[in-house]
Amino acid sequence: MGKKAKIKKLKAKIAQLEQTLAPNPSGPMISPLAPKGGFPDLPVIDGVEFATSETGIKYKNRPDVMLAKICAGASIAGAFTRSSTRSAPVLDCQEKLQNVAHLADEAAIFVNAGNANAFTGRHGDSSVKAISKAVADTTGVPEARVFTSSTGVIGQVLPEEKIIAHIDEMAANLAPNTIEDAATAIKTTDTFPKGASAHIDNDAGSISIAGIAKGSGMIAPDMATMLVYIFTDAKISPTLLQEVVSAKTDQSFNAITVDSDTSTSDSLIVAATGKTTAPEITTLDDKLGLAFAQALGDVMRDLAHQVVRDGEGATKFIEVAVTGAQNKDDARKVALSIANSPLVKTAAAGEDPNWGRVVMAVGKSGAKADRDLLSISFGDILVAEKGWVSDRYSEEKGAAYMKNDDLIIQVDLGLGEGADTVWTCDLTHQYITINADYRS
Amino acid sequence: MGKKAKIKKLKAKIAQLEQTLAPNPSGPMISPLAPKGGFPDLPVIDGVEFATSETGIKYKNRPDVMLAKICAGASIAGAFTRSSTRSAPVLDCQEKLQNVAHLADEAAIFVNAGNANAFTGRHGDSSVKAISKAVADTTGVPEARVFTSSTGVIGQVLPEEKIIAHIDEMAANLAPNTIEDAATAIKTTDTFPKGASAHIDNDAGSISIAGIAKGSGMIAPDMATMLVYIFTDAKISPTLLQEVVSAKTDQSFNAITVDSDTSTSDSLIVAATGKTTAPEITTLDDKLGLAFAQALGDVMRDLAHQVVRDGEGATKFIEVAVTGAQNKDDARKVALSIANSPLVKTAAAGEDPNWGRVVMAVGKSGAKADRDLLSISFGDILVAEKGWVSDRYSEEKGAAYMKNDDLIIQVDLGLGEGADTVWTCDLTHQYITINADYRS
Repeated sequence: MGKKAKIKKLKAKIAQLEQTLAPNPSGPMISPLAPKGGFPDLPVIDGVEFATSETGIKYKNRPDVMLAKICAGASIAGAFTRSSTRSAPVLDCQEKLQNVAHLADEAAIFVNAGNANAFTGRHGDSSVKAISKAVADTTGVPEARVFTSSTGVIGQVLPEEKIIAHIDEMAANLAPNTIEDAATAIKTTDTFPKGASAHIDNDAGSISIAGIAKGSGMIAPDMATMLVYIFTDAKISPTLLQEVVSAKTDQSFNAITVDSDTSTSDSLIVAATGKTTAPEITTLDDKLGLAFAQALGDVMRDLAHQVVRDGEGATKFIEVAVTGAQNKDDARKVALSIANSPLVKTAAAGEDPNWGRVVMAVGKSGAKADRDLLSISFGDILVAEKGWVSDRYSEEKGAAYMKNDDLIIQVDLGLGEGADTVWTCDLTHQYITINADYRS
Repeated sequence: MGKKAKIKKLKAKIAQLEQTLAPNPSGPMISPLAPKGGFPDLPVIDGVEFATSETGIKYKNRPDVMLAKICAGASIAGAFTRSSTRSAPVLDCQEKLQNVAHLADEAAIFVNAGNANAFTGRHGDSSVKAISKAVADTTGVPEARVFTSSTGVIGQVLPEEKIIAHIDEMAANLAPNTIEDAATAIKTTDTFPKGASAHIDNDAGSISIAGIAKGSGMIAPDMATMLVYIFTDAKISPTLLQEVVSAKTDQSFNAITVDSDTSTSDSLIVAATGKTTAPEITTLDDKLGLAFAQALGDVMRDLAHQVVRDGEGATKFIEVAVTGAQNKDDARKVALSIANSPLVKTAAAGEDPNWGRVVMAVGKSGAKADRDLLSISFGDILVAEKGWVSDRYSEEKGAAYMKNDDLIIQVDLGLGEGADTVWTCDLTHQYITINADYRS
């Protein structure tokens, strides 16, 4: 080989190695697990308008703040992190959602990305108040109905004046059809904006639901997760809306984990404008109520899955389904023990059908388990049963299965009726590269 | 630059990138955190002999089985994993330690590395019996006093005949001064053999303690950990020995974590031969009893620290010390939440003084915490207090501190008297490389 060819070959080798280690190999990389076809077409929700702007606080040349204005009389519900070090905006939202004095008024949601305004002492509280007041003054929404979120670095003071300077311009640009811009403005380490929608048809009119989310790392929600905003034209009381949101959170945002780390900023806000011509939802037990709960749950789960698909460094989307536990709590314990195990997650990254590590994770979970009753499947492939590897299992089948982007690990404990499912992603070099560099 | 120089430069770059990604960059790598000076000089313990051999089951050209024979009348105590999928040898040891019929007889410990004999169904139980019987037949030790351990891959049948074939030779080679060989034979992904010792001087004679351990990944002990064998010539009843072992386990092996994953094989066995001329230890409350408990605890903690220093891919040894919790349980929760956080551990790997992630880990721990009472220090550097970054903190000081190999993260919750300390290591590319490849 000539020296020139040799140099070319060496350079190609370097490029390949660097790709493994680089957080951003060639411009803005998109997760290999991102939904095909890009951001979905979301329905316009009557009564909701969006605007975004660029403050340049952390990110340059991209929108990093978003404002959503919601019509008078909308019902608002939410769920938030239970972290004992939760951020100032989370504490403020929780307090405002208790407030019933302004239920009939307009509402607003304001979000900035790049700075979490968490662990910023009393200054953090005054930043929230200053932004809320500025949004209220400009939009006419009562301050008690302005909900703010901040996401990004923990422990740095939020330069609120740089944000407030953009609120006039944003209020002037509010429009009903810019929800994709809003989804883009709230991203931090996300590699794609996340959206999902649903429709319910009723004789008197249809109900639409459109939601957006951000989240990629520090994902192990407890009570709610990340930043999620869902809008619907459904007519439903705040109490009933809160009931369905709380119920569905457990099987969507609370059932995912990227890295077992729980954010200080996790917030889910759902706004129902009541603009539909369909009847008011007055119970969750009739046909319309059931359909709405199902549709909202689907949107929440879809967004939760998209967060996992954008998990930092993820190359595999993994469903962990546990059945046969003595109760549901035990099923959740086993599922999360598997989903949070670094050894299970690195095996998935290496496409190694290492079911022994699944056994290990079952064993450490604290849930009741019996070696001889346990069975494990990868997708449709029965791997282990009766305390041992299955006669029907072959390593070749297991290894071939692990090459899929989407994996299902099924565990049956053989003890009872308890079942639960959670979702996670693999643990790769990219996760290390992203988090050994990025100050978040 | 000439082409030749260019090629040289490119090759150097490739070597550097490959070192980051390679599990074994240049022959057998030793953890950068390994104790300086290699394996320590351990005292010979009167009444204990060792032998090792090479079965070639998984590892080639290195010893992978070890036999320790212990004199008649020795007290044996142990602690084992609480995993519900614990291995056949662990179950067998736990049963045998209940047995008091043979207390006056000789005892033996037999260990193989490379295959964990875990989740191997009834075959696993019969492998343990076959090996125990062969050791008993050859050495004359009653089968009820033969304790076995297996460490390595989970879910593969142990080819016990390949092990049994070496027992005659091992019994013939038993010698009192080969404990370092024993420490080497029990390694799996360990990069160095681990040993520690202590002495207690008494007017009537001295007591010696010598211990060995293996462990590197799947380290988040629950009740005991990894494989650890400690020998002493102390004179002490089995009941009292068990009492001190259990008490000291909580602050040594149960206080470390490499990756939050708990092994199916964790076993600690302590044998006291009674060969010392020092008096019998009859209580833990007098001078001798206190000195023995302290010395045994020191050996256990030293071995536990060595396991962390050999944590898969580790480049930082991290002490997490929590004070001011409302009680000890809460202090342990906060300490483990920090020590197991992938985001804290990757920040340490990147030498990033990212105290915001420590705040996050405190918040998610489930322990009672108050943002405004919390303070965080890195070593002697006060980082955060009163709900915010400290006035005295500078990023430069923090960044310089993070360059140390040994780090201390101190958290004071400001609530009560609860305190606890745990030890961990950082999370690096090497951990991913080792575990995305190695079937363990």
